[in-house]
Amino acid sequence: MPAPIEFYFDFSSPFGYLASEKIDALAAKHGREVLWRPFLLGATFKTTGLGPLVSVPMKGEYSQHDFMRSARLFGVPFRLPDNFPVGTVSAARAFYWLDNQDPSRARELAKAIYRAYFTENVDISIAENVVAVAAKFGLDAAAVTAGINDGSVKDRTKIEVEKALAKGVFGSPYTIVDGEPFWGSDRLDQIERWLATGGW
Amino acid sequence: MPAPIEFYFDFSSPFGYLASEKIDALAAKHGREVLWRPFLLGATFKTTGLGPLVSVPMKGEYSQHDFMRSARLFGVPFRLPDNFPVGTVSAARAFYWLDNQDPSRARELAKAIYRAYFTENVDISIAENVVAVAAKFGLDAAAVTAGINDGSVKDRTKIEVEKALAKGVFGSPYTIVDGEPFWGSDRLDQIERWLATGGW
Repeated sequence: MPAPIEFYFDFSSPFGYLASEKIDALAAKHGREVLWRPFLLGATFKTTGLGPLVSVPMKGEYSQHDFMRSARLFGVPFRLPDNFPVGTVSAARAFYWLDNQDPSRARELAKAIYRAYFTENVDISIAENVVAVAAKFGLDAAAVTAGINDGSVKDRTKIEVEKALAKGVFGSPYTIVDGEPFWGSDRLDQIERWLATGGW
Repeated sequence: MPAPIEFYFDFSSPFGYLASEKIDALAAKHGREVLWRPFLLGATFKTTGLGPLVSVPMKGEYSQHDFMRSARLFGVPFRLPDNFPVGTVSAARAFYWLDNQDPSRARELAKAIYRAYFTENVDISIAENVVAVAAKFGLDAAAVTAGINDGSVKDRTKIEVEKALAKGVFGSPYTIVDGEPFWGSDRLDQIERWLATGGW
């Protein structure tokens, strides 16, 4: 069994969301699993000195246009949330809390959180909203709340962000296939080619 | 006759170089001409607050790997120059000097300058080296030297850089198809699709 594809993403990343709608099917086509690993872009900004894409003059305006165009190309519903970008530590903690128990279900929760943010305008920077999304998804609200506030879950989230940084993850999505890194949702075709051919 | 594709690039941009080897053929397939427009990334950095890609921690290392990988994918020879990135005002002036007389030939000169920098390690930040490349290309060295130093050529170069900025050009390559902007050499497939379908 080949190693899983590592899929790093921030819950506030439009391109992470777009890739999240495609990566499992793409991997499955090539007999691969996907290891979903939310991280926090804010932590990478401290190292890279960069900031949110949409805050960059010119590049920010282009990006907003490109979010919409890329979503249409992917055939994925998309709406830029009113509050964007946002901190996503609560969403990441909810994910890792569930991942400790059931990684497959955590992956589906990640998709539900992404869709709530990028199609329903739910402000996922607010912990209560993340809990509400998880409850609608079928989880027990009190259990999720306790999970988000659990010290060991906070620790794991922190460690996973540090591990992502140590792997060189500086943007979202960032996908690693057999040690080969691909940054961006516009590299899915290259990821597919790498999976099919073993590289070039 | 449909409008030409606008192709903005900095002579020090690896992804600009890669795209420069493909853009004319891609456009021709769809009955289009390409308007080649060198600009100066340094001028955009003043507006965007960004800096050279390879200077960004983590992202810079990824990019160096990605230059090589992208070149292999494109089937284009590539070598990261010893002096990189560099200022390219002399190269841009040589281009616009020739463009004033013969746009088709200026386009071929641009390709020769790119190849000298990215395959032969010629430091194109040095005006004399740009002249040497132009001379090897078949131009009169004294005429090119005079052109680079001509006030009206300097003015035109400055104006073209300002026009690029006014169009929203913040990175290289930046290609505009019927008003639709595409940033990056990894968007050539999207450019092709846009040309073929008129958009999505």
